[in-house]
Amino acid sequence: MGFSSKQTTVVGLGLMGASLALALRPISEKIVGVDPDPNVRGHALRHGFVDTATDDLREGVRYADTVLLCAPVRVVARIVSGTIGAYLRSNTLLMDIGSTKQDICEVMGRLPIGIQAVGGHPMTGKEVSGIEAADASLYANRPWVICSTRRTTPAARIRALELVEAIGAIPVEMEPERHDKVVAAISHLPYLISASLVATVQRAASKTPEVWELAAGGFRDTSRMAGSDIRMMSDILSTNTQAVATMLAMFRVQLGILETMLISKDEEQLAEALTPLRQQRVDWFESYERRRNGSNR
Amino acid sequence: MGFSSKQTTVVGLGLMGASLALALRPISEKIVGVDPDPNVRGHALRHGFVDTATDDLREGVRYADTVLLCAPVRVVARIVSGTIGAYLRSNTLLMDIGSTKQDICEVMGRLPIGIQAVGGHPMTGKEVSGIEAADASLYANRPWVICSTRRTTPAARIRALELVEAIGAIPVEMEPERHDKVVAAISHLPYLISASLVATVQRAASKTPEVWELAAGGFRDTSRMAGSDIRMMSDILSTNTQAVATMLAMFRVQLGILETMLISKDEEQLAEALTPLRQQRVDWFESYERRRNGSNR
Repeated sequence: MGFSSKQTTVVGLGLMGASLALALRPISEKIVGVDPDPNVRGHALRHGFVDTATDDLREGVRYADTVLLCAPVRVVARIVSGTIGAYLRSNTLLMDIGSTKQDICEVMGRLPIGIQAVGGHPMTGKEVSGIEAADASLYANRPWVICSTRRTTPAARIRALELVEAIGAIPVEMEPERHDKVVAAISHLPYLISASLVATVQRAASKTPEVWELAAGGFRDTSRMAGSDIRMMSDILSTNTQAVATMLAMFRVQLGILETMLISKDEEQLAEALTPLRQQRVDWFESYERRRNGSNR
Repeated sequence: MGFSSKQTTVVGLGLMGASLALALRPISEKIVGVDPDPNVRGHALRHGFVDTATDDLREGVRYADTVLLCAPVRVVARIVSGTIGAYLRSNTLLMDIGSTKQDICEVMGRLPIGIQAVGGHPMTGKEVSGIEAADASLYANRPWVICSTRRTTPAARIRALELVEAIGAIPVEMEPERHDKVVAAISHLPYLISASLVATVQRAASKTPEVWELAAGGFRDTSRMAGSDIRMMSDILSTNTQAVATMLAMFRVQLGILETMLISKDEEQLAEALTPLRQQRVDWFESYERRRNGSNR
C-alpha cells in the first residue's frame, strides 16, 4: 500500500509547490513542473526539483496520474473551471492547496466525470515566499485538510489520504464550509488584526515617530501577518467574506469586554478575564510544538 | 570615561534582573543580588551571577553606588516610595526597568535629595521568564529608554547613559509621558489584541473544536503576547490606562475601515489599503533586524 505515482505534475512552483515537488520526489517516478516564469522553471530544473518543466498547462498535465495545483485560490478556481478538465486523463487525481475550500470544491464538482478531484489545504507556510525558500520538510507533521467534492470517488479519497501521509503530513478530513469557518478564526482574522495594528501604529507615529525605533518582539510577532502576500490574502478574503466578517464581529465583542474592564479600572476582573486566556495560549502552544516535533504521531 | 561601579545591586533576579547582573559583570567590581526567593538566590550564587545575595533590601543596597530595580511596575513604585530612600548612600544611581514610566518617575521625584534616580525601560525580553533563562546578551543592540526625573542631576543622567552603553544597549532619552504613549501603541495594544484573539478562537472552538488542531504559524505569532505574565501586564495596564484606551479606540477605527471594505466586497479598495500596510511591516522588519544585529551602530 501507500502512495505511488508514475507522473506527478505540480502546477505553480512557488514556495508551496516547489516544496511539494521536493517532498514527492521519493514517491513519484517522474515529476513535472508547470510555471509561467522561465527563471523559476530554470531554478527547478537546475536544483533537480522536477524532471521536466513547461509553461504549457496541457503539456504539463496530459500524462500525469497526479496533479497538484499550487496557486492562490482564484488562480486555482480559474484553472479548474477552465480547460484543464479536457487535458486530464480519466482517473487522474487532481488536488489543490488553496487557502479557502468552498469555491474551489464547488468548481471541482463540475469537472468531467472520471476526473478525481479533491480539495486540499496544508496548514503550513513560511515567512518568505518563492522557489528559493523551497523546503522538503515544509509539510512534515503539519495538518493537511482534505475536502471531498462531487468528483471524489472512495478510491480517490484513499489516494489523496495516502499522498498526504506519504509526505509526512497529517490528513484531517473536513467539509469545505467547516474548513472555511475554521481558517477564518485562526488565520484570516489574525491577518486583519495584524494589518489593523500596523495601521494604528502608523497613525500613532505621526505624533510619536519613535514607535518604529522602539517597537520590539511584541509588535514584531503581532504584526507579522500584515507582511503576507496581498494577492494571496485578497483571494482568501474575497472567497471567505461571510465567515471572516462573522469572526470580526466576535472579535470586536471580546476586545470590547477587555476594554470595558480596562477603562472602568476593574483590575481584578481584568486579571480574572486574562488569566484563562493566558492558560489557553500556553496549553495550545505546548501541544502545537509537540505535534510539530512529531512526538504525537 | 565609560561606566564603572564598585558595587552594583540588582533588586529582583528574574529573567531581566539576572541577565542584567550578567551583563554588568565585566564593569562592576562587586554585584549584589536581592531576591525574596532562596532558590533564586541559590541559583544566582551557584552560577556566579552575583557575588553575594540577600533577601534584605537594606542589606543589599546600603553600600551600593548603583542600584537597579528589576521588578513589575507596581513593585518598583512600592520600593521607591517605601524606605529605600533611607537605605541608600547619597549620590547612588538608582535606575529601574519597569514597563511604564510615569508613575515610577513621579515617585522617584519624591526621593530624598542626593539620590540619583533615573527611570529606565529596556525594549527587550524573552518568551520564557525566570533566572534559568538569563542571558548576558539580552540587552545588546536593543533600545533602552532613559527618563530623567526631578532627582536626576546632569551627572546622574550621564552615568545612566554610560551604564546603558556599557552593556551594549542603545539609550533613547524620552519624557515619561511620551514613553508611555509609545509603548501603549507598540506593546500594550498588541497584548490586548492578542488576548482578544485567543478569546475569539475559544468561542469559535465551541462550534468547531478543530481550530486548536489546525491553528498554525499565523495564530501562533498573533496570539503570542496573550501568554505574557498576568501580574506584569496587570501592572502595566493599570498604570497606563488612558494611553492604552486611546490606542484601542484608534485600533477599532482602523479595523472598522478594513471591515467595511471587506463586507462591501470592495476588493480593489481593500487591496489598496492593505498594500502600504504590508510595505510598512516589511520595511520596519528589515530595519528592526538590522538594528538587532548591530549593523546600524
